[in-house]
Amino acid sequence: MSAAAGTTQGATLRARKEEHQRLAATDAVQTRTPPGWGDIHLVHEALPEVDLDAVSLETELLGRTLRAPLVIAGMTGGHDGATAVNAALARAAERHGLAIGLGSQRAALVDPTLEPTYAVVREHAPSAFVIGNVGAAQLVEQGGKGPLTLAQLRRTVEMIDADALAIHLNVLEESVQPEGDRRARGVADAIAELVGTLGVPVIVKETGAGIARTTAERLAALGVGALDVGGLGGTSFALVERLRAQLQHDQRGIELGEDLAEWGIPTAVSLAGARTAGLPLIATGGIRSGLDAAKALALGATAVGVARPLLLAALDGDAALDAWIGRFLETLRTVLQLTGCTTAAQLRERPLVVGGETRAWIDDLGYGPLRPAPAASEPGR
Amino acid sequence: MSAAAGTTQGATLRARKEEHQRLAATDAVQTRTPPGWGDIHLVHEALPEVDLDAVSLETELLGRTLRAPLVIAGMTGGHDGATAVNAALARAAERHGLAIGLGSQRAALVDPTLEPTYAVVREHAPSAFVIGNVGAAQLVEQGGKGPLTLAQLRRTVEMIDADALAIHLNVLEESVQPEGDRRARGVADAIAELVGTLGVPVIVKETGAGIARTTAERLAALGVGALDVGGLGGTSFALVERLRAQLQHDQRGIELGEDLAEWGIPTAVSLAGARTAGLPLIATGGIRSGLDAAKALALGATAVGVARPLLLAALDGDAALDAWIGRFLETLRTVLQLTGCTTAAQLRERPLVVGGETRAWIDDLGYGPLRPAPAASEPGR
Amino acid sequence: MSAAAGTTQGATLRARKEEHQRLAATDAVQTRTPPGWGDIHLVHEALPEVDLDAVSLETELLGRTLRAPLVIAGMTGGHDGATAVNAALARAAERHGLAIGLGSQRAALVDPTLEPTYAVVREHAPSAFVIGNVGAAQLVEQGGKGPLTLAQLRRTVEMIDADALAIHLNVLEESVQPEGDRRARGVADAIAELVGTLGVPVIVKETGAGIARTTAERLAALGVGALDVGGLGGTSFALVERLRAQLQHDQRGIELGEDLAEWGIPTAVSLAGARTAGLPLIATGGIRSGLDAAKALALGATAVGVARPLLLAALDGDAALDAWIGRFLETLRTVLQLTGCTTAAQLRERPLVVGGETRAWIDDLGYGPLRPAPAASEPGR
Amino acid sequence: MSAAAGTTQGATLRARKEEHQRLAATDAVQTRTPPGWGDIHLVHEALPEVDLDAVSLETELLGRTLRAPLVIAGMTGGHDGATAVNAALARAAERHGLAIGLGSQRAALVDPTLEPTYAVVREHAPSAFVIGNVGAAQLVEQGGKGPLTLAQLRRTVEMIDADALAIHLNVLEESVQPEGDRRARGVADAIAELVGTLGVPVIVKETGAGIARTTAERLAALGVGALDVGGLGGTSFALVERLRAQLQHDQRGIELGEDLAEWGIPTAVSLAGARTAGLPLIATGGIRSGLDAAKALALGATAVGVARPLLLAALDGDAALDAWIGRFLETLRTVLQLTGCTTAAQLRERPLVVGGETRAWIDDLGYGPLRPAPAASEPGR
Ligand SMILES: Cc1cc2nc3c(=O)[nH]c(=O)nc-3n(C[C@H](O)[C@H](O)[C@H](O)COP(=O)(O)O)c2cc1C
Ligand SMILES: Cc1cc2nc3c(=O)[nH]c(=O)nc-3n(C[C@H](O)[C@H](O)[C@H](O)COP(=O)(O)O)c2cc1C
Ligand SMILES: Cc1cc2nc3c(=O)[nH]c(=O)nc-3n(C[C@H](O)[C@H](O)[C@H](O)COP(=O)(O)O)c2cc1C
Ligand SMILES: Cc1cc2nc3c(=O)[nH]c(=O)nc-3n(C[C@H](O)[C@H](O)[C@H](O)COP(=O)(O)O)c2cc1C
Repeated sequence: MSAAAGTTQGATLRARKEEHQRLAATDAVQTRTPPGWGDIHLVHEALPEVDLDAVSLETELLGRTLRAPLVIAGMTGGHDGATAVNAALARAAERHGLAIGLGSQRAALVDPTLEPTYAVVREHAPSAFVIGNVGAAQLVEQGGKGPLTLAQLRRTVEMIDADALAIHLNVLEESVQPEGDRRARGVADAIAELVGTLGVPVIVKETGAGIARTTAERLAALGVGALDVGGLGGTSFALVERLRAQLQHDQRGIELGEDLAEWGIPTAVSLAGARTAGLPLIATGGIRSGLDAAKALALGATAVGVARPLLLAALDGDAALDAWIGRFLETLRTVLQLTGCTTAAQLRERPLVVGGETRAWIDDLGYGPLRPAPAASEPGR
Repeated sequence: MSAAAGTTQGATLRARKEEHQRLAATDAVQTRTPPGWGDIHLVHEALPEVDLDAVSLETELLGRTLRAPLVIAGMTGGHDGATAVNAALARAAERHGLAIGLGSQRAALVDPTLEPTYAVVREHAPSAFVIGNVGAAQLVEQGGKGPLTLAQLRRTVEMIDADALAIHLNVLEESVQPEGDRRARGVADAIAELVGTLGVPVIVKETGAGIARTTAERLAALGVGALDVGGLGGTSFALVERLRAQLQHDQRGIELGEDLAEWGIPTAVSLAGARTAGLPLIATGGIRSGLDAAKALALGATAVGVARPLLLAALDGDAALDAWIGRFLETLRTVLQLTGCTTAAQLRERPLVVGGETRAWIDDLGYGPLRPAPAASEPGR
Repeated sequence: MSAAAGTTQGATLRARKEEHQRLAATDAVQTRTPPGWGDIHLVHEALPEVDLDAVSLETELLGRTLRAPLVIAGMTGGHDGATAVNAALARAAERHGLAIGLGSQRAALVDPTLEPTYAVVREHAPSAFVIGNVGAAQLVEQGGKGPLTLAQLRRTVEMIDADALAIHLNVLEESVQPEGDRRARGVADAIAELVGTLGVPVIVKETGAGIARTTAERLAALGVGALDVGGLGGTSFALVERLRAQLQHDQRGIELGEDLAEWGIPTAVSLAGARTAGLPLIATGGIRSGLDAAKALALGATAVGVARPLLLAALDGDAALDAWIGRFLETLRTVLQLTGCTTAAQLRERPLVVGGETRAWIDDLGYGPLRPAPAASEPGR
Repeated sequence: MSAAAGTTQGATLRARKEEHQRLAATDAVQTRTPPGWGDIHLVHEALPEVDLDAVSLETELLGRTLRAPLVIAGMTGGHDGATAVNAALARAAERHGLAIGLGSQRAALVDPTLEPTYAVVREHAPSAFVIGNVGAAQLVEQGGKGPLTLAQLRRTVEMIDADALAIHLNVLEESVQPEGDRRARGVADAIAELVGTLGVPVIVKETGAGIARTTAERLAALGVGALDVGGLGGTSFALVERLRAQLQHDQRGIELGEDLAEWGIPTAVSLAGARTAGLPLIATGGIRSGLDAAKALALGATAVGVARPLLLAALDGDAALDAWIGRFLETLRTVLQLTGCTTAAQLRERPLVVGGETRAWIDDLGYGPLRPAPAASEPGR
């Protein structure tokens, strides 16, 4: 690839990243399909015997301790507007002891002058658990573009002194994206290879269409360190790319974006499915409160990821981020008390009710039972 | 605690109680989640062989006979406006032979000049079954405040010559309440101790989030005399406290109140669950008619409790109370006839249909079957 | 009873009958609860091998042949306005070979000058299957009023040369009715006695709250000749009586009418339940088209009954009645062809799908299976 | 039949066909009942290992290869306006390698001057898979009109050099149609006879009310080559004929059209049922996108048929047709990639979730299971 081509590609990437950030902040990118939390009911414990102060949100993730099971999901980087957002998010991660993911770092690999838009995260979050990010599509050849080299992938880690690297699976987004990468073959092998050589754990992460049980088990077999199920029900990248296609008068992208806006496995379903893979699970996609988070934890998540709400808050500044995170944590902590838990992990043993369409999904895919069958009472007692 | 501190605490309590009463009278405190009665269907008996006159609503509760299975649920006391409301409610209890609960008596323990706002109940209801009330949170130490002493608890009984004392479990409300008590540990032990020494039966009562089967069974093992399941679907104390938080500009309370407004086990579900505890059950939370009451009785309740509708009626005076209670009793009596029952207890043997989300709850928590399986008819007959 | 009292009672009855007819013609008397037809699906037969001309609607009912399985349900009589309506309905029955029921004949027993308002039916329908009507409540003593004597009951038959007598069960209506009869005991014995001595078959008929399986089986054991399940989902007599109560400023009736407007067993459910009684079944309550009728027939009805729509048509005249009945028959005949049936009875062997809340009712009451279990296909074929 | 009568009949047919085309283009002909695709969920494969380029839509149908599993469903012919529409549809079929059906050719048999309105299809689609069309009702005698002769049926094939002949079953439409043919007996025998002698495969096709499992199996036994299940949920011919009846002031047609507008088996259900017949299945009725098509293919269809959307596009010209088909194919291809399929046939092995009313249909009719039962996970893992 010539330098000029590189620059052009860099400029394209930068523009795209800018658009992603801008468009994702609009209201039109939320799926109509719910993530499933409304179909899940936790059971109140009226006599919890747990003091609110005794509740600890501390969570182990890949050998590190977070002060709460919350990951600021990877979003941005690679354009000028990203720097401030990433800095704000990083400061929040540092203040609250959270994990933080970055947006895809490809832009900085193509155009190293963009590295600071990512590196700002480590600067402002020196002790946080920071997760690099690169797309699975870039692990294989796409048209003229060769796959990312191991050196490049290492650079994504070094650039931000990453504690883990997320490979995002976004075949739906690539399909809709006007200039998307349409090849998917070879990704599994590339992940397997990377896992053995990168030096930090690899997290595989969907970006809004979810991971099925069989896929989760395949990924576990490849040696992946954790999964972010990235399910349907929050920000939709089919819708984001449709908005971009509209700006570019790309009819194909507009239409595919509409046709597939509701494609995917709802987050709650995907979580129920991925339980058997034996990996730490992050639940991203439509988590909007500490109550949603508690339901995800009860379904088996180790932590939850939140993207769009934190982007909106970050655009409003540090105080808005503190407000959002504070509310989230306070609700989560309270729900732990209300279910008689002192730790988030205990939620996995608490009873659970599943109704609505989520039940049909879990039944038909064999993702249940989610809890051991309760002993029935005497009929008619 | 210094006298001054006592007075301040008393003033705070008094103000809070006044606010509770005022805010609970607004429309904004009803949950969106239904209590479940709409999902429960009783079965019409076209040939009841029961005269309306032969229907008796008389009900045994803790060794006493009520003229109807209705408890005026504990609401108020501890501030000036409470006296008239309590007097009106007490007169109604006396006239109709009902049980009547009081609001939390803590205020009067802290500031004995408030005792008359409670004692008025016994004055006007000399022969009624009167239930004292105190919060479970006050049975254990909270911040600087020590737990209520046995002497104080005895005083709650003496103050009104109570026939029973209700310990209310309200960990959700305490969570949302700006000045709430956030400790819950030790409550079970405190209840167990109290049960053995108080001299009147102890009723444990939730206040809007319900009691799970396991909790009901734990409470039975502690020696409690009866349970009021106080389920989700009527007045929400998360919403009441959110309104109070709004008045106080307490952002945390506002947000928790919103996030947890729909938290809890719907009353019908909680009732189905608590059946196995072997205790008399009171069903409070979203009972709005004699038909709702009949469904609760069919699910195993010994009596139902009603709060907010009776508060609204009491604010309108004795005639309004008589009107509400009269309608309630007439409908309940009629439903007994329409199901071929002469007593409320017989409803427990009548067939029952459970649909909607209530069915998912009962299935997943193993709270069924509610009736012995009916014999199937010949296929295709 | 003095003659004057008789006249007063007669005047009251006449006024009530007039009000019934007038109020039932308003829109406010239809239940919100559906009768269940919308939850029932018949299965299209694309290759029916039945000519439309070959479809016969002829139906045997109690030893007589109707040209179609349609009963003009008993509605009116006993006041001046009734004569024209009854005459129109009778002419329609005669023209179309239908069965026709009368409204309660008690008014004419109390005040014989009212007999012509009923007898007009036989005049205009000399060859139709005519069904007399009297309330079950009048078979037992009610306050001062003694039960109808056998002579009186025989007079109901003679008055119209009835082919059968319907005893209507309407304990719900009596409950709501300001001047209602609230005794129900002894009705079963009275029916048993009547059955043996009347000389024409006795049909027992609910009037909007349905008949449960156990009740249907009890009625069969009493020797009754047929049942009209009269289920919930069409005209509601709780609502009709509530409107009357409103006119009379009877607060109790208004309130009971509201509280119990949706009380009862939906018609489709009641039909499924009554199948096992071994009696001919008439399905009345919310039948609004030939398609509803076909579903009722598939559930086991021998014929369907229609009241309010035919009252409205009768008020518009003979042409309107012909139009309504013509449409009904044409749709029913077409549905028979579309399911490959030449007779209505064959519908009982055709496949059936039951969804929604009707399914919960049928499951929980053990009224299924409605059809033999179909053989499952090979999984995944 | 005299020549004049023939001409009159021809004129009538021509007018009817014109009206069909015009009325079907209005919005009022879509059923309210959905075809079921919304209740069916495919499962996203996050790691598909399939390049978009590797996806092939090529499909075998009756020994011929289509470039995509799409049939332009039979619609028009027999009137002047049809020629342009058929030409446009034919060009599209040729360009995209699709199958194309014609509207009923009866008009041209009655009036041979109309042949060109059909023959235009073969002219513009020399290499496409072209499907002739004739109504099942015309295979038997109807009133004065004798059944079509074998010579006439052969002419339908020759007229367009058809690769197959579709016999459409439309007993619902004939019922509603003012001048409809109401006889259905003998159709099965006539089909059996035709199958053995025609020389091209016979496809039996419903036109909006679906084919039940038992019917599909009967048709397979008759020797039919393929089935088009033509289910409920797309264009309704009850509604089309109701509109025609309205123009003709035919009250009977208007009423039957209204009463039976939602009659039939939803397309998805019909497809699930017909699986066991062992024939290639075409799924027509409410297919509106490549995503709907993918669900139909997953349920066992070999190809899908689309009518009304392509009529609307054809009226707008070739570009509009290309746009519609292009979008459809792109979405279908993408869904194949997103489910990890390289061919449409593989969709039949992919997991499937069925919710809502479609589930009740499939359960009650014994059309499931659609997939082998998945192994359950350890409870509570
Ligand atoms: C502006 C924006 C940019 C994103 N960019 C990336 C990305 O580069 N890599 C990635 O893995 N996910 C990306 N995501 C997806 C999020 O990490 C997350 O999976 C998704 O937004 C769902 O979470 P939500 O419903 O909380 O927004 C992005 C999300 C947003 C809103
Ligand atoms: C104004 C008000 C004050 C209340 N105060 C108390 C209380 O002090 N103690 C208690 O156990 N419950 C209290 N409750 C809760 C009620 O007893 C009852 O459980 C709850 O309101 C649900 O019933 P409802 O839906 O009929 O209102 C109060 C309710 C209201 C409306
Ligand atoms: C005006 C009116 C009067 C009625 N009077 C009687 C009656 O006297 N006896 C009786 O058995 N049913 C009576 N019914 C009940 C009907 O027979 C029928 O069961 C009920 O209306 C439900 O049918 P529908 O939904 O088609 O109206 C009456 C109904 C109406 C509308
Ligand atoms: C204008 C029009 C005319 C039709 N004519 C015929 C016909 O002659 N023969 C036939 O088999 N189907 C005919 N059909 C039915 C279609 O082939 C198809 O089964 C039906 O429209 C459902 O598909 P859709 O929902 O995609 O429109 C016609 C449909 C339309 C819209």
